[in-house]
Amino acid sequence: MEKLNHGGNIWELIEKYKFKKEEIFDFSSNVNPFFNISKIKKIIYSSLDEICFYPDIEYKKTRKIIGEKFGLSYKNVILGNGSIELIYILPKSLNFKKTLIPIPTFSEYERAIKLNGGDVIFLKTKEENDFKIEIDEILKNILYIDSIFLCNPNNPTGNFVEKEDILKILKKMEDDKFLVVDEAFIEFTDRESPYPEIKKYKNLLILRTLTKIFPIPGARIGYLLGNEGVIEKVSKYLYPWNLNSFAKNLIENLINFDLKKIREKIKREKNYLVEKLKSIDKIKIFKGEANFLLIKIEKDMDFVEKLKLKGILVRDCSNIKGLSRDFIRISVRKREENERLVRELKCLLYL
Amino acid sequence: MEKLNHGGNIWELIEKYKFKKEEIFDFSSNVNPFFNISKIKKIIYSSLDEICFYPDIEYKKTRKIIGEKFGLSYKNVILGNGSIELIYILPKSLNFKKTLIPIPTFSEYERAIKLNGGDVIFLKTKEENDFKIEIDEILKNILYIDSIFLCNPNNPTGNFVEKEDILKILKKMEDDKFLVVDEAFIEFTDRESPYPEIKKYKNLLILRTLTKIFPIPGARIGYLLGNEGVIEKVSKYLYPWNLNSFAKNLIENLINFDLKKIREKIKREKNYLVEKLKSIDKIKIFKGEANFLLIKIEKDMDFVEKLKLKGILVRDCSNIKGLSRDFIRISVRKREENERLVRELKCLLYL
Repeated sequence: MEKLNHGGNIWELIEKYKFKKEEIFDFSSNVNPFFNISKIKKIIYSSLDEICFYPDIEYKKTRKIIGEKFGLSYKNVILGNGSIELIYILPKSLNFKKTLIPIPTFSEYERAIKLNGGDVIFLKTKEENDFKIEIDEILKNILYIDSIFLCNPNNPTGNFVEKEDILKILKKMEDDKFLVVDEAFIEFTDRESPYPEIKKYKNLLILRTLTKIFPIPGARIGYLLGNEGVIEKVSKYLYPWNLNSFAKNLIENLINFDLKKIREKIKREKNYLVEKLKSIDKIKIFKGEANFLLIKIEKDMDFVEKLKLKGILVRDCSNIKGLSRDFIRISVRKREENERLVRELKCLLYL
Repeated sequence: MEKLNHGGNIWELIEKYKFKKEEIFDFSSNVNPFFNISKIKKIIYSSLDEICFYPDIEYKKTRKIIGEKFGLSYKNVILGNGSIELIYILPKSLNFKKTLIPIPTFSEYERAIKLNGGDVIFLKTKEENDFKIEIDEILKNILYIDSIFLCNPNNPTGNFVEKEDILKILKKMEDDKFLVVDEAFIEFTDRESPYPEIKKYKNLLILRTLTKIFPIPGARIGYLLGNEGVIEKVSKYLYPWNLNSFAKNLIENLINFDLKKIREKIKREKNYLVEKLKSIDKIKIFKGEANFLLIKIEKDMDFVEKLKLKGILVRDCSNIKGLSRDFIRISVRKREENERLVRELKCLLYL
């Protein structure tokens, strides 16, 4: 398998550096550390016998539950083996040939498009502008492309594009072009999603995951919301039974969970982390709106490797287009872990 | 989602006919009823915490364990979210444009090839010949195609193509053509797989699943064995983390399980079922080598629907190319269930 560089690879630390799983501080994968995992376990226990059956080939009940949450029909919903599967199916099923991607962002959009033989136009945002995505720049390009991938809030910068700006894009878009808004991290914010506009704009596709706000990336759960006809078209490119039975049951039991308290906890802890990092003078912080921070460290040193030796994983941003090896992304963890990270960063910087 | 017709859809019986899960006799999905499910549960319990982490993006350890079982390297192995995912990735990654498929067989090969814009040449086997696949017919066509899907033993006929016949095909194949042997049911037989020939023939690809002989279709587990370079090529078309963490741990713990006793149990029970069905004079049996039987019922009646009303699911073969509505496929279940099926069939036929 091709070597891909992403966060969350605790397995390298276990194999190469001989850490035990419980000794690792993983700031590299953006999952929520505050959700009580015993709730997850209960759902799995209670649905364990279903592993002996093929899941419903249409996943109708599951799609209906998701649809209802968003005031939509099950025909507006399809499920993915992680939202990443849907990222790969979209360019093929909707025939993306020229896609606009504001960068820096999640690298898999580009890989998915190129694998399907499409071209990518990168819209480079500026560090001095805090990597803000300029809607006017998107609008200027809209005639020359057939699709846009917009990560909102953006990974790894955390920047958020407001609903009114998304509407500006949709209003200028022709009928056969698509705006894919990847909202993997929106549930960590209090911001408004444009999903109700699906009823009006068939160009709008909303991509979500259940395995960030719920810390279960091993279960592989993603879903896509869109116009009925478009969803029908995309679904033709899915193979049967793409969701495992645990994923199916986890969706059904978790999708309506009240996330308010968790959001508050993360916000509090994020503010703490920002304050502490501010006190380190060689660090520049891009706070953003999600459960992670992009930071720039103004000292020429391989921080990622040095932190690994301490059992700390952060997201190396050196291979993200539009960033450099000076940048790392860290997710907000629990207090004790955050303190540990700040301590180790100080050690490395002041030594 | 497109309406697909496959076995194992107990959910329709639950929703439409209001059966409880435990009231349903499912002869339509070909999973093994004799494996002790408590072993599966133990594996899931012990690996439950892993759901909080992204699986190793390369699945190196898992692929190594599979490779070792077959005397191959991890580089000869890739994993699929069910073998069906690999069936869909093969035509695209290896550019199948004209594929030979002996029929009747598993309908998803055709769908996967056509979705990728390829053409299918069907090789129709004859009922009067017990649907035997004639190797000479394959050899005659080999110049005009670039790929072959061979289900071995075949679903739904149970016919097996011997290793020496597969070698005949491989010897006549040019380097850039591929023979995909889908061995989803081979572990129910005592027959010899051609997998050691992977070292010699880069055209040979062996597809397997872990969710037939182990009754866990809800976990979604498949794998592909092949030449290093070919596997590398196919893997470029996989998206990251396609296997969930339960599937990964189930593979690692089950792949070397001794299946001898289970095979014997199924064989015994299959012989019992064949004897009982033989005593019904309107039924013609195609015994085959797998854990299921194809039967032809010489009475014009909608058996599939009539059995559903009794809570019995069988595989409707009316939509399988090369068969008709007179055919149904039934998997071998436990004694009590098999007796029930025979009783209900007699009732329907003699009433």
